[in-house]
Amino acid sequence: MGENSLSIPDLIAKKRDDIELSPDEIKQFIQGLSNGDVQDCHVGAMLMAIYIRGMTEKEICSMTMSMRDSGERLNWPQFRGSVVDKHSTGGIGDKISIPLAPALAACGLKVPMMSGRGLGITGGTLDKLESIPGYQVQLTDEQITDLITNVGCGIISQSPKLNPADRYLYKIRDVTATVPNNALIVSSILSKKAIEDLDALVLDIKYGSAAFMKTTEAAEVLAEWLFKVSTMLGMKTCCYITEMNNPIGYCMGNAIEIQESLDLLKYKLGRSSDLEELICEQGGRLLLLINKVETIEQGREMIRNTFKNGSALQKFHDMLIGQGVSVDIAKQLISNDETIVGSILKLSDICHQGISLQAGYIESIDAFKLGTIVQRLGGGRLKPMDTLDLSVGIRLLKHVGDSIEQNEPWAILYAPADASKRYPKFLDDLNASLLVSSSPVKPLQRVYKIY
Amino acid sequence: MGENSLSIPDLIAKKRDDIELSPDEIKQFIQGLSNGDVQDCHVGAMLMAIYIRGMTEKEICSMTMSMRDSGERLNWPQFRGSVVDKHSTGGIGDKISIPLAPALAACGLKVPMMSGRGLGITGGTLDKLESIPGYQVQLTDEQITDLITNVGCGIISQSPKLNPADRYLYKIRDVTATVPNNALIVSSILSKKAIEDLDALVLDIKYGSAAFMKTTEAAEVLAEWLFKVSTMLGMKTCCYITEMNNPIGYCMGNAIEIQESLDLLKYKLGRSSDLEELICEQGGRLLLLINKVETIEQGREMIRNTFKNGSALQKFHDMLIGQGVSVDIAKQLISNDETIVGSILKLSDICHQGISLQAGYIESIDAFKLGTIVQRLGGGRLKPMDTLDLSVGIRLLKHVGDSIEQNEPWAILYAPADASKRYPKFLDDLNASLLVSSSPVKPLQRVYKIY
Repeated sequence: MGENSLSIPDLIAKKRDDIELSPDEIKQFIQGLSNGDVQDCHVGAMLMAIYIRGMTEKEICSMTMSMRDSGERLNWPQFRGSVVDKHSTGGIGDKISIPLAPALAACGLKVPMMSGRGLGITGGTLDKLESIPGYQVQLTDEQITDLITNVGCGIISQSPKLNPADRYLYKIRDVTATVPNNALIVSSILSKKAIEDLDALVLDIKYGSAAFMKTTEAAEVLAEWLFKVSTMLGMKTCCYITEMNNPIGYCMGNAIEIQESLDLLKYKLGRSSDLEELICEQGGRLLLLINKVETIEQGREMIRNTFKNGSALQKFHDMLIGQGVSVDIAKQLISNDETIVGSILKLSDICHQGISLQAGYIESIDAFKLGTIVQRLGGGRLKPMDTLDLSVGIRLLKHVGDSIEQNEPWAILYAPADASKRYPKFLDDLNASLLVSSSPVKPLQRVYKIY
Repeated sequence: MGENSLSIPDLIAKKRDDIELSPDEIKQFIQGLSNGDVQDCHVGAMLMAIYIRGMTEKEICSMTMSMRDSGERLNWPQFRGSVVDKHSTGGIGDKISIPLAPALAACGLKVPMMSGRGLGITGGTLDKLESIPGYQVQLTDEQITDLITNVGCGIISQSPKLNPADRYLYKIRDVTATVPNNALIVSSILSKKAIEDLDALVLDIKYGSAAFMKTTEAAEVLAEWLFKVSTMLGMKTCCYITEMNNPIGYCMGNAIEIQESLDLLKYKLGRSSDLEELICEQGGRLLLLINKVETIEQGREMIRNTFKNGSALQKFHDMLIGQGVSVDIAKQLISNDETIVGSILKLSDICHQGISLQAGYIESIDAFKLGTIVQRLGGGRLKPMDTLDLSVGIRLLKHVGDSIEQNEPWAILYAPADASKRYPKFLDDLNASLLVSSSPVKPLQRVYKIY
């Protein structure tokens, strides 16, 4: 920084007084996180000033780039034009990434997908994949390059060498009431994606009672920012706003969501096709963004075909082996023998049923309540360091729009032995999650808006 | 705290969202500074939220009491009704406390005055007193009790056992751009005064180019808050708003301000009587607040008499001895031999003169410029740990309203040998500090408003 550069307190004062910070000033602050100029107290004050005053488009863009540049980056010049990824703000039953990455790889794309763990009621892709014995989320640089080169996709954790600024900021945001802020959310999400050296990115912003954004209005504001800043960063971007009042697909939990993912990869169509439609839509969009297809319809069909012809399943198999899973287990998982698959992706033996109290049509299934049950019974975290019970989960037997008889079961809960102790009202909540209407209900429309 | 108490992040979120914190919540946060619940990042975020959202009267009062109670407190049941103090927000040449404390003691009052050091252009009372050889600012509890019991006044530093919350908060405020905030200023000032177990308090809020508050409007807002909260805390309080564009009295620096204080204590009336008038006014007000006199006029005269009859000088002498100064030096300082006094309170041998470029009447003397000169030449601090050159100072030969001839000197600057290196434009600034008018100028009116 030059002689005329401001001190860290001066930078905080500018933001405090709602004056736009220059790109160099933001860079100075973010670099200060690594070089010791910026201390925890500065971060707390700056984050609160940003929370209350907000940031301009230009500031968020500078912040995102400075965060991206705070550590090492991936680099794929050899695959220029085919490197893509998808990010979701998180939902209940949201396992889209797991079949999507191998489907895209089967289309010849490169998907260096860095995912996270779950906190709160929202599950984490890495937690789910760890229910596969031997699955490694931390790979060396060489392993990552091999995986992307030879298989085409990997679902991995972010290395500590990448984006240290985001980790520092998030640690402080988490304890200073500055998590729910669009400027900070956008820079955190996009700095992580920008490190992957992407050509195209699809963002899935969830709204609804089980989502971070409760209303479509809130989701729209976030989506607009994400779209603008991601585009400014040179990534071809599409933002979806999708509904998250009802669970996605028919499984919620960890091992159980891998089971549902495998069902789709094997094209065993489940009781609901909303998962398949979302994956075909978002995967197809990525194919369109990088001009691999000419229309979104072609894109959707290209993705669907990778499920129909088994090429996505094969890529998933190859990815598992590339990420440490034994050849035997990978082979068993892609077999059609559900007993063998179930013996690897173990669920709890203790089952409870959700029963409908009345006949009619299913109007809604409360994703927030079901997500909370799974979390409280050990399938999700209350605190960052909690260990998970991967065998807990819920399988829906019915979906929104289906007809149902009185006393007919609509869900199976795989629960731990001490369920009543962990969450006394879990059965009441399970039953209260179902809303039945006497008149027919039209099926879910997941996609609300596309940017 | 009870089971239903909020977490520290929840408390920050409340203030972030502009919701009033309860007394218990504020207490929880302030206690957290000592018990480890509150970390630096929390403090930074909370201070910024307070800075931007502000605090209600009730919140400031709770905050002040919690800070006061964060450590030990003084306690004077034996002197109930006579314990008083004065606090100023700081000005150039402001040595009011130094003659005022012994004058009040000479009236039979008890003055356990805890003062601070200077930072920026504003001098610190303790720094000035340390130009007296042997003067100790840190006394034991027993020494303080002896001093207040036997002499009646002491000018001391705040013990580390008192008000640790204020020190913690100030350390973070200083680096997070959260110093200039009325809620934080009021709680910091009054928590320190509340520890002294006072019956009455006079507050002197300066406004002007050399003050923290640049305008009368800003000073009025602060004065109103200070008055309200101090009164709520049970102290009989009077707030003065006084002018701080021109220096107070005729000396600025450290040793030189003790010289001026001694001149007043010996009732050698100087070239300006504004210092004397401010002291008589504020001291007289304290006498009135505790019903020692019936009118402010009686109060002023009672203070003035302690200078005229030498009783304040004797109290100053006794206070010096109680604070570690040798009997010889104390005796020499109160003598009328200016050479001996000058040999103890040494000024630099190197003098520069400020000369008027035109004849006329002095309209103003720029206190900010003169304060900056003294600071930059070593008489003030740029950083908290800087050591001071106590021999640097400025003596005014003329005051606002005086007539002056062309080329007549109006100030003497006692400067270090390396003055030009420390502050190259010091002589230009000295000359630029004088504003001369061709028409007569009425003398200064220091007091702008009284609450």
